[in-house]
Amino acid sequence: MTDAVLVLNAGSSSLKFAVYPHAEGEPTAILRGKIAGIATCPVFSASDATGQPLPQDARMPLPPDATHADLIPALLDWIQSHRGGVTLTAAGHRVVHGGRRQTGPARVSDALLEELDKLVPLAPLHQPHNLAAIRCVAASAPDLPQIACFDTSFHRTQDRLAQLFALPRALSDAGILRYGFHGLSYDYIASTLPAHLGTRAGGRVIAAHLGNGASMCAMKNRQSVATSMGFTALDGLMMGQRCGALDPGVVLYLMEEKHLSTAEVTHLLYSDSGLLGVSGLSNDMATLEASIAPEAREAIELFCFRAAAELAGLAAAIGGLDALIFTAGIGENSALVRRLICDRLNWMGITLDPNGNIRNARFISTAASAVDVLVIPTDEEGVIARATQDLTRG
Amino acid sequence: MTDAVLVLNAGSSSLKFAVYPHAEGEPTAILRGKIAGIATCPVFSASDATGQPLPQDARMPLPPDATHADLIPALLDWIQSHRGGVTLTAAGHRVVHGGRRQTGPARVSDALLEELDKLVPLAPLHQPHNLAAIRCVAASAPDLPQIACFDTSFHRTQDRLAQLFALPRALSDAGILRYGFHGLSYDYIASTLPAHLGTRAGGRVIAAHLGNGASMCAMKNRQSVATSMGFTALDGLMMGQRCGALDPGVVLYLMEEKHLSTAEVTHLLYSDSGLLGVSGLSNDMATLEASIAPEAREAIELFCFRAAAELAGLAAAIGGLDALIFTAGIGENSALVRRLICDRLNWMGITLDPNGNIRNARFISTAASAVDVLVIPTDEEGVIARATQDLTRG
Repeated sequence: MTDAVLVLNAGSSSLKFAVYPHAEGEPTAILRGKIAGIATCPVFSASDATGQPLPQDARMPLPPDATHADLIPALLDWIQSHRGGVTLTAAGHRVVHGGRRQTGPARVSDALLEELDKLVPLAPLHQPHNLAAIRCVAASAPDLPQIACFDTSFHRTQDRLAQLFALPRALSDAGILRYGFHGLSYDYIASTLPAHLGTRAGGRVIAAHLGNGASMCAMKNRQSVATSMGFTALDGLMMGQRCGALDPGVVLYLMEEKHLSTAEVTHLLYSDSGLLGVSGLSNDMATLEASIAPEAREAIELFCFRAAAELAGLAAAIGGLDALIFTAGIGENSALVRRLICDRLNWMGITLDPNGNIRNARFISTAASAVDVLVIPTDEEGVIARATQDLTRG
Repeated sequence: MTDAVLVLNAGSSSLKFAVYPHAEGEPTAILRGKIAGIATCPVFSASDATGQPLPQDARMPLPPDATHADLIPALLDWIQSHRGGVTLTAAGHRVVHGGRRQTGPARVSDALLEELDKLVPLAPLHQPHNLAAIRCVAASAPDLPQIACFDTSFHRTQDRLAQLFALPRALSDAGILRYGFHGLSYDYIASTLPAHLGTRAGGRVIAAHLGNGASMCAMKNRQSVATSMGFTALDGLMMGQRCGALDPGVVLYLMEEKHLSTAEVTHLLYSDSGLLGVSGLSNDMATLEASIAPEAREAIELFCFRAAAELAGLAAAIGGLDALIFTAGIGENSALVRRLICDRLNWMGITLDPNGNIRNARFISTAASAVDVLVIPTDEEGVIARATQDLTRG
């Protein structure tokens, strides 16, 4: 039997999981998978250590109307009996919001859960599902240690100025602050910088996490100095379906003049905007790149125009730029997006190597470029696995 | 009798005016003044061509409960009889919103007023008062030609990408766009650039209009390429009482979780935020600079931190920076604010000359600075006067 930790990322209708055997150094999953469509029509998929999908007969059986509460115990059993079995020593969870207090991964306790419950209004789309999964595991395996890893923690090194909105002090004191997100991804990127950049790793670095959700983080000494996402995951860059930065007057106008409810505006800004809204076609960058529709091209151009502006604005917080890292789905795979962004930033000393860029190479800037530009695949689950193993080691 | 044009800037409870004799070249006011506190306790103030306040017995008599409708005809009479009298040949108005169609000053007609009425929901705090003043003048002096000068027009040279939010296309098509404001000020600054910068005037220039309202405009060939204000005058820089850029999720949170009405949020973001909200003390930069309270200093620092980030972001739209212009109340007078902003932008090639800066000199960058930094007092009324004279010349 192999000792391993389980990594869980629970959403409203999905549950992603990965199993990492105990190891020194870089953690490597031996099993990862996803249950999608929970409570409607659940679909199970999983792959082994080599990325090969599991054969039909090796998959976990799914009752059609199963909820998270049914599926989590079944998943724990299935994993522990899978292929000769592993012994789970701990579970690590992605939790979107850790508030002001959580500056790193934390061992789950009743007191912590109570604290995290209070943050639900700050991240209503994610936090309740993250916490429900922790409670399901606790109910099903009360002795299994659990670790919460927060998307906000990495940014708690930021100066107060970077976290403040220009709102009345009472609101800032009450927690209406720029928390920032995607911290697990930035944590991973920061951990890899010395291997790639040597002593420049501690310099002025911006990581661009460009996925269906997208943000950027400006770092110095591999710590977060400023980030594009704010109080919620709606701010900053244009995203797949989210609007990103938006004049707050537009929200007021839609409600006052167009008589939309807060629920309707929330849906509009979170689900109908971004690449999908501007193109009218798709929230998927690859789909838009393959399209010949001018609306698709406009959506891509707007995404890149805004990303370049956001990047330059973040550079002001760290006094310039030594390295730029592209990561996450779009960042790792779209040579077009990287080129359109970097072409707007030649004046900052960025010169892309077209050949490296097209190949998604590790270094995609020219030797003469004042700024190193890199593509580094992110590994948020690996960060959770390592933290979980570290915090539960005997 | 001197032929002259009248410039009017009508707010909800105030009416600013200036009288410009016909002239070639730079217009110079012979009289300027303000009626404040209209409909509550009106107060009249005015000064002559040299800036000397008019003596008590030379001021316009004010009935205590006078409205705009009473005051405008009285003002026209008073001006035309003042000191031997001037003959008003036209009136020019500041109008905050010209929508997508108005790319420059326009002669007032019924059709234009009808078009501008439709924009009231886009600028409810200013547009109705601007239009009411035009109608008052028309009722009182039906033969006096009137010109509307728009705060949005200067930005209509912008590329579509700079005007788009990442919202569904239908909303962009319906006019939810980044219009930008302070266009009369930028128009004036752009007109002065050749005299100061020679051939560099057509380069990459950012003008920072920092007053109680504040925005920035990135220009190339002295035309607007991008600006920090968006659909409303709420977006972008932190201001005296306005929040500037704000995660739209904060607006939704305040309504959904804190049960604020749109009216309450509007008041909060337009009137209780910015320098006033963060300091808890004042919306006035000079007052904050004179204060020893740490909250005052924090408000100033946040203002400058955000201004530096916005400036760098705008530079991305014009591919770098050749010159930076500070203008308006804070821009023209606060050496501290200029220094704190520029100190964050050394990496962009900005080096301030501390002596020139402290003296509010015209050029405040060092000879070696890659970017020229200038202080240029703005003159929005002069722009209106010139346009009014030009468009009504026989």
